[in-house]
Amino acid sequence: MSRLTIYGAASSGNCLKTKWVAERLHIAFDWVETSVVDGATRTPEFLKLNPWGQVPLAVLPDGRTLSQSNAIMLHLAEGSDLIPAEAYQRAKMFEWLFWEQYSHEPVIAVRRFRVKFRNVRDDETDRTLAAKGDAVLARMNEAIAAQAYFTGDALTLADIALVAYTRWAEEGAYDLAAHEHLTTWIARAERDLGLPPTR
Amino acid sequence: MSRLTIYGAASSGNCLKTKWVAERLHIAFDWVETSVVDGATRTPEFLKLNPWGQVPLAVLPDGRTLSQSNAIMLHLAEGSDLIPAEAYQRAKMFEWLFWEQYSHEPVIAVRRFRVKFRNVRDDETDRTLAAKGDAVLARMNEAIAAQAYFTGDALTLADIALVAYTRWAEEGAYDLAAHEHLTTWIARAERDLGLPPTR
Repeated sequence: MSRLTIYGAASSGNCLKTKWVAERLHIAFDWVETSVVDGATRTPEFLKLNPWGQVPLAVLPDGRTLSQSNAIMLHLAEGSDLIPAEAYQRAKMFEWLFWEQYSHEPVIAVRRFRVKFRNVRDDETDRTLAAKGDAVLARMNEAIAAQAYFTGDALTLADIALVAYTRWAEEGAYDLAAHEHLTTWIARAERDLGLPPTR
Repeated sequence: MSRLTIYGAASSGNCLKTKWVAERLHIAFDWVETSVVDGATRTPEFLKLNPWGQVPLAVLPDGRTLSQSNAIMLHLAEGSDLIPAEAYQRAKMFEWLFWEQYSHEPVIAVRRFRVKFRNVRDDETDRTLAAKGDAVLARMNEAIAAQAYFTGDALTLADIALVAYTRWAEEGAYDLAAHEHLTTWIARAERDLGLPPTR
């Protein structure tokens, strides 16, 4: 009997999201560590599994594949309490999930990648990412000021998606200490997910 | 009795997505035309509705707000046949929706905006967007070669999200004629949505 396989890199927040969801929901899976920096996602074998050449990639127990971190999370979490049962809260969860991929990840994760893995700082792109990311973090800090989690009083996929790279923002040279509600939420989400605290 | 209000710009594919879904599902709504180029999304009144300063913005009948085009579509389409009932097809729909926001819109829509509204061509960014977009269109053409719609044999939110800017790709100086499966699908989706053909 086959079980879920996740191809992913432990250095990628996008990949870890899917791992955390599987673990939290006690879904048995195999993790195939697949680096995003050494060409492992560009081999003919991997491209056969995922023509996009991206991780995370989930190979479901029936052999069918699924890409896009948030789509994989949604599939694994169907019917669980990680997806709000109430329609508006669920809609807000989706709002955050799409915002995370459009406005957060291309800034917070991309600057971290440049700083941590490429050692690039203080060029024009870096200054743009710095300014955009500061605004992103300030907005998140404001949104989480009066509630425990991004969609209300319980951990959902929105928190899991958002915490993946937000907890690593300092590796991208962002200042998290300026955002106290955000750092409180990061610690809370890390505790919920059984992760060692980053701060 | 209040009804749905959508703030949106008719020149924005992201906004039109939500309009098409409401129309197709016979959801009564008011459309408030809100330009993305003349500062209408940056007025204090609008920022009170949506601190992100973005359209589309939905004000639901109960007065609560929702942003992010794909999140609005998902909320409006809940329980309808625009969301596949089968779990894997639904997961693939989500895969395309997240891909659209991460890999398609920032390329196809952004180049169209630069070319059509800013009259910018042939700078370094344009050349990057041209190359990325050609790859995006080729990949879509391949994905749709053997099926009528992106998640199978019926129109879903994946098609609605993808067609919004793909049908306008030529306004962004992309060559659609090279992608015959894609142009067939564009015409099919436009017909399904009751839109005048772009080609």
